[in-house]
Amino acid sequence: MHTLDKLRHTIPALRISTEQSDLAHYGRDWTRRWTPAPLAIVFPADTAEVQALVQWARATGTPLVPSGGRTGLSGGAVAANGEVVVSLERMNRILAFDPVDRTLTVQAGATLQSVQDAAGKQGLSYPVDFASRGSCTIGGTIATNAGGIRVIRHGNTREWIAGLTLVAGTGEVMRLNRGLIKNSSGYDLRHLVIGSEGTLGIVTEAIVRLGAPLPASKVVLLALPSFDAVMAAFVEVRGALGLQAFEFFSGDALRHVVAHGAQDPFAEMHPAYALVEVDSIDDAEETEMLAVLERCLERGVASDIVVAGSDAQVAALWRLRESITESIAARTPYKNDIAVRVSALPAFLAEAEALLAAGYPTFEVIWFGHIGDGNLHISILRPEDLAPDAFVAHCEHATDMLADVLARHDGSISAEHGIGLVKKPWLARMRGEAEMVRLRGIRETFDPDGILNPGKVFD
Amino acid sequence: MHTLDKLRHTIPALRISTEQSDLAHYGRDWTRRWTPAPLAIVFPADTAEVQALVQWARATGTPLVPSGGRTGLSGGAVAANGEVVVSLERMNRILAFDPVDRTLTVQAGATLQSVQDAAGKQGLSYPVDFASRGSCTIGGTIATNAGGIRVIRHGNTREWIAGLTLVAGTGEVMRLNRGLIKNSSGYDLRHLVIGSEGTLGIVTEAIVRLGAPLPASKVVLLALPSFDAVMAAFVEVRGALGLQAFEFFSGDALRHVVAHGAQDPFAEMHPAYALVEVDSIDDAEETEMLAVLERCLERGVASDIVVAGSDAQVAALWRLRESITESIAARTPYKNDIAVRVSALPAFLAEAEALLAAGYPTFEVIWFGHIGDGNLHISILRPEDLAPDAFVAHCEHATDMLADVLARHDGSISAEHGIGLVKKPWLARMRGEAEMVRLRGIRETFDPDGILNPGKVFD
Repeated sequence: MHTLDKLRHTIPALRISTEQSDLAHYGRDWTRRWTPAPLAIVFPADTAEVQALVQWARATGTPLVPSGGRTGLSGGAVAANGEVVVSLERMNRILAFDPVDRTLTVQAGATLQSVQDAAGKQGLSYPVDFASRGSCTIGGTIATNAGGIRVIRHGNTREWIAGLTLVAGTGEVMRLNRGLIKNSSGYDLRHLVIGSEGTLGIVTEAIVRLGAPLPASKVVLLALPSFDAVMAAFVEVRGALGLQAFEFFSGDALRHVVAHGAQDPFAEMHPAYALVEVDSIDDAEETEMLAVLERCLERGVASDIVVAGSDAQVAALWRLRESITESIAARTPYKNDIAVRVSALPAFLAEAEALLAAGYPTFEVIWFGHIGDGNLHISILRPEDLAPDAFVAHCEHATDMLADVLARHDGSISAEHGIGLVKKPWLARMRGEAEMVRLRGIRETFDPDGILNPGKVFD
Repeated sequence: MHTLDKLRHTIPALRISTEQSDLAHYGRDWTRRWTPAPLAIVFPADTAEVQALVQWARATGTPLVPSGGRTGLSGGAVAANGEVVVSLERMNRILAFDPVDRTLTVQAGATLQSVQDAAGKQGLSYPVDFASRGSCTIGGTIATNAGGIRVIRHGNTREWIAGLTLVAGTGEVMRLNRGLIKNSSGYDLRHLVIGSEGTLGIVTEAIVRLGAPLPASKVVLLALPSFDAVMAAFVEVRGALGLQAFEFFSGDALRHVVAHGAQDPFAEMHPAYALVEVDSIDDAEETEMLAVLERCLERGVASDIVVAGSDAQVAALWRLRESITESIAARTPYKNDIAVRVSALPAFLAEAEALLAAGYPTFEVIWFGHIGDGNLHISILRPEDLAPDAFVAHCEHATDMLADVLARHDGSISAEHGIGLVKKPWLARMRGEAEMVRLRGIRETFDPDGILNPGKVFD
């Protein structure tokens, strides 16, 4: 019997598609490097169907690719080798809210936006946030331990997950940590699964913690003369104000956003910008903010400043930052997503810039990122006269040299996008052989037959 | 050659003691159930000596027991079977402070108090806190993912550890996460080690994150008519005020503390008390606090209230809570340290009380704990006419029934003390066989020869 016939026979109720358009759509993520070639797409309705599916995959040796909103940037959800893609999109419900625990129980296919909205309806917040909120799923954010624009105040996804339902690669269902705040009872497998990119099991449900609503804030855009000034502004602002976000982008990044249709709020271009959101609950906090901004101008830390005076202006300033990715998408950029300690950023940036300028003088490099988290996004734009394959080869060589700089600075090759396929060549250099042996041992323990997302993260 | 002669020969500089008083002192923790019987106590001076020691232990098959301040309550640091105890007490230095990263790099043997003090000197705070702060070590708090009195605001130890240096059971040294805020690059082994009670490796150094100083606060003691009133007060206070701590203890607990020399701040006894610490930065917050307390009295949620008016009164109120353990120590209590979701506390408590009252009517049971974290400490005092061994046997039988109630409520047999030897019989019932297989696989991956803390947590 054909593999899929066996699957239909084993789980009669399972929705399965082999439509060409579905294979193309569900076989790729926001990377565009691999040609989608899945065997089929399946759409389980509940944890029991996922479990039956994994048991079938084990029995038949069929590789599975767990799939959320496929907004990933590292190829973690790509299916290019005859895998069965397990789309969680039908499992998108908010199952329960508990007002005492302040938690939501949600299915893994719920979008980040729907979780944020459900929290808001209860007068609370789910503070993990980033631009793809409308498309990405909570399961996908768990798979990569997603960061985003509020990490500086609220931490990564990891901090907000109180429980996970996991169908392990063995086909067993585990309810990890079950919503507890304190639990010192053996190794915390929940934290092992968060950030594992679908290689240990398929997350089908999560219990997420909710926080108080974000306090009233002011949004400010600082124009800055240099990257060193960005760091100086960060230390100045953090020391005096309650930071909700501190995002950096280069003058080149703003240039692309403006070319894409946005309005430059300043009269002239500047080398760097910082989008800053700070608590502003009362007059005292607003006065303090203005004093800090005044000091930044007086000392030459900032060259110019815009304070958003209305919700529309807040949205417009945030759009400058959030549309960078879209504004350069047509140039099929090669993306790096590195992290170092915040204190190591200036030295790392200087070395990385020098390296790219010397080795790749024709590359246009767009810098932006989350300064307060030590996270820089480095997007290399393809010169029009360079073929895509040759471009990727050049970029991988550049990343190779960047990885050495990172290793010297105790950095990470992926801050928040994950390793997937894109960063796999450099994982071992970052983690070292002793850690790699443990990663392989752990994967073997959860997925002895290697059916879950094979070829992703590490071999 | 005798085992220790080989060790002296292999690591000539290593400080070793076989003094009877040292064997007795370093062979036990705050549990008093096991007779210490280590082979020797060693005091390494640095990570290199720990590494050499683990390599020697592997080569000779010698079991090691990592040892911090030995304030543990679950027997995790007990050495009763000829083990070599590895005391980290000489490795107690604060190595570095980084003002941009807001981190301290510390050796694992530094006391919690010394880390808090070092943070305070920099105008920052290390907010993990509990009564044994002067004796427990940062390494010990990592081993159990220690909680304490500030979890409700600041989370567990886990949230504050940005990096760990680990000597794994294989003898390899790993620098996990290296101080990064964001790092989505393969499984997070740091979080696996936190809470592993010395069974995966020996933590020799940590990079701890620091926070802003705690805001100015008011401390209030509420006298309450019932446990249900404690829950009602919790929801009321949390909804309106910034909570820094919300600690519960029973009337019986206060009776012991008063018998131990403390002053009862109320004119009469009450069934329950809540020690509450809330933000009180300005007049508006103080007014709001008084309004909340007024509402609690009017609605009968609280029977009486004391607001501390001076630092001395703050200390006196906190002493009521923090000296419970000491006040009952002479009765060699059998301790349970359970957690359920906060919403499940009333049902769990009612069932647990009924179970203990029916099965063990002669037992005196002292209840206290961290309501906002779903964490209750249940201390059973030994009746004077019951021999210690018989008492423990009775308590273990009671715990066995309690474990069934816990399992029904998705609870945990240890919230913050760890499993060690004391709670080992119930771990599998809480975690289930599928998780236990993964725990064993992970242990095997880090410590293939089983030389690290053998017999602790699980077999």
